[in-house]
Amino acid sequence: MVNIGIVGYGTIGSGVFEVINTNKESIAKKAGEPICVKRICDLREFPGDPAEKLITHDFNDILNDTEITVVVETMGGTRPAYDFVKSSLLAGKSVATSNKELVAKYGAELIKIAEEKNTNFLFEASVGGGIPIIRPLNQALTADEILEIKGILNGTTNYILTKMQRDGAEYETALHEAQDMGYAERNPEADVEGYDSCRKIAILTSLAYGTQVDYEDIYTEGITKITAKDMYYAKALDATIKLLGESRIVNGKVYARVAPALISSKSPLYSVNDVFNAIFVKGNVLDDVMFYGRGAGKLPTASAVVSDVIDEVKHKDRHITILWSSKKLNLGDINEASGRYFVRVPAEEREAAVKVFPAASEVKVEKVKGEYAFITGEMTEKEYSSRVEGLNVLNMIRVSF
Amino acid sequence: MVNIGIVGYGTIGSGVFEVINTNKESIAKKAGEPICVKRICDLREFPGDPAEKLITHDFNDILNDTEITVVVETMGGTRPAYDFVKSSLLAGKSVATSNKELVAKYGAELIKIAEEKNTNFLFEASVGGGIPIIRPLNQALTADEILEIKGILNGTTNYILTKMQRDGAEYETALHEAQDMGYAERNPEADVEGYDSCRKIAILTSLAYGTQVDYEDIYTEGITKITAKDMYYAKALDATIKLLGESRIVNGKVYARVAPALISSKSPLYSVNDVFNAIFVKGNVLDDVMFYGRGAGKLPTASAVVSDVIDEVKHKDRHITILWSSKKLNLGDINEASGRYFVRVPAEEREAAVKVFPAASEVKVEKVKGEYAFITGEMTEKEYSSRVEGLNVLNMIRVSF
Repeated sequence: MVNIGIVGYGTIGSGVFEVINTNKESIAKKAGEPICVKRICDLREFPGDPAEKLITHDFNDILNDTEITVVVETMGGTRPAYDFVKSSLLAGKSVATSNKELVAKYGAELIKIAEEKNTNFLFEASVGGGIPIIRPLNQALTADEILEIKGILNGTTNYILTKMQRDGAEYETALHEAQDMGYAERNPEADVEGYDSCRKIAILTSLAYGTQVDYEDIYTEGITKITAKDMYYAKALDATIKLLGESRIVNGKVYARVAPALISSKSPLYSVNDVFNAIFVKGNVLDDVMFYGRGAGKLPTASAVVSDVIDEVKHKDRHITILWSSKKLNLGDINEASGRYFVRVPAEEREAAVKVFPAASEVKVEKVKGEYAFITGEMTEKEYSSRVEGLNVLNMIRVSF
Repeated sequence: MVNIGIVGYGTIGSGVFEVINTNKESIAKKAGEPICVKRICDLREFPGDPAEKLITHDFNDILNDTEITVVVETMGGTRPAYDFVKSSLLAGKSVATSNKELVAKYGAELIKIAEEKNTNFLFEASVGGGIPIIRPLNQALTADEILEIKGILNGTTNYILTKMQRDGAEYETALHEAQDMGYAERNPEADVEGYDSCRKIAILTSLAYGTQVDYEDIYTEGITKITAKDMYYAKALDATIKLLGESRIVNGKVYARVAPALISSKSPLYSVNDVFNAIFVKGNVLDDVMFYGRGAGKLPTASAVVSDVIDEVKHKDRHITILWSSKKLNLGDINEASGRYFVRVPAEEREAAVKVFPAASEVKVEKVKGEYAFITGEMTEKEYSSRVEGLNVLNMIRVSF
């Protein structure tokens, strides 16, 4: 039997406890032996909870318990999670975490410690919730060189955008509904400004290229400027708007960004709706694959954490190689990245806009008057910026088709 | 350096050779050492081919070469593939195969031999071409009990059905186009009658439940009876028709079948078009996940084979557990499986049909006259069959929403 400790008994942590108990038998079969939660560290008390008696307020009760060989970290944030995880690994325990901030910032370092201590640091749940994506990148897509990753990585923003698309709702209305449904926080900044997606694409890009991508380096734009009008235009283009975390390699340079993008109905990402997430990967021999599922939620995320725990039980005293060195990957300058741009300007600026974008194709929508909207030809962000100087741009959205 | 032998230098086998050479460096990094193709067994000669000098007509040149530790089997069929694979495993070599017939029929036995010899038998490419699905089922979805698998598992039939949907083409026209494009064989039976999908869902179901599902036990219906008219009705229902390989567990019984089904536009499977494949899996805690990609094709399939080879190089002298025993899984009687049915009868039988299906909802399409089409309420296949007795059913398609 393997004893595990859980640090952080919030939504995910209690989900891990529930999954391990619900699927006890099948998990024992797949892990090769039963898995039992011995201790749970949380500052709160949980009277009446089935795990009540396992609670401790002192992390040392887990760290110093030699019977506990696997630690699940589901607190979130970097402090004190980093210290807890690091000391667990240094003590020779394996760690499974759902903590994207921790992984984005300290992934390379923690993997190295795990390697040195011949133990494991796994983090399937840190990106895409229940969707297997970390393990496929590490173990399945190994024959390929990854050319491109495009992900709908945040359920909150995808719910809001889906709502706006389906109901013609404005951003604020859709946000409030998401908050009422419990899909968005009262302070929704981390989601709607793209910070959450940014950490996730940083993790995926680090794994794809085996080096450290600092999330602070990734150009990040949220969805707060998307309007019902933009969605009308998207529909006219047989497209929709999604918040994408993207990275791609062009002439040996890796470019990464988080920004809303127009997605054509022909893309498999188009029909990824509501709180669902999906990650699209292009390999140089595999071509396109996509992984789809619940990007958040108690049990789906817990399922991913538990799959890591099972892997760690199966790999006692054997480090699972993850290629992610602390060597910094210098991203390409986003201003040099090329693309096409959907742009809206007031009708009175049509002439000026046509002058600077002579090759643009107009997009017309019956419901919207008094505007000139168009899609530019392909050009770098820098060129786009210099061309629109002097124009009163109502909104610009990158085109992903 | 690890030396491998390839048995069968057709489309996939030559793809494996190409992938290993194209991505030599990144593969060496991921495997921990370089991988080199030392010998290729094929009865044909390949003058001018880059692999020309590696060709042998005698499998023993691979079997008896102790430097070759991994064998790639890409011949297809069960004989002599079975003998070659079995003797390779017995000789202590690992085997990676793309051969679905072999895996469906002998998977359990070959896994057992690999376990006994402490070596590996992997078969990621046998289902879904380049899509990682075998490895996720084995290693990622381990925290879950699998409730349902629904797959678009055959690219040829999906291309034909997509063509019928988009162009309103009849089956024969779409089939001929698929043949002209090289997506369908001159003798398309294995694809269009669902035999290929049947072997694949047998493999996935065996893995999901850890026991042997004999593909001969799976009810299998192809797409040859689907007409342009059926597609019109599907469109009116905001749905489409896909050939699904399905299995699900109901009250402890596993039901499996291959048949065309109506898929709603809300399902992520709806927009899986052309030669793409996708496998949708429902876990008891994970809920829905879907894996999407190229289900066939030289390089995508070869990419999956090579990912297995890399895993085998990383797991020298260490068996990767795959739960698939030779214990036979007795499938539930398909007649006891419940569902709803889309049914078309001649207009003159409307009254008779309404009499036996009073709760049915009519489906109307402007383009089709002289018919009464409806969707029944939920009932077993047996009950459906007994109710339609005496009716002149023009076509029946199962409803998957």
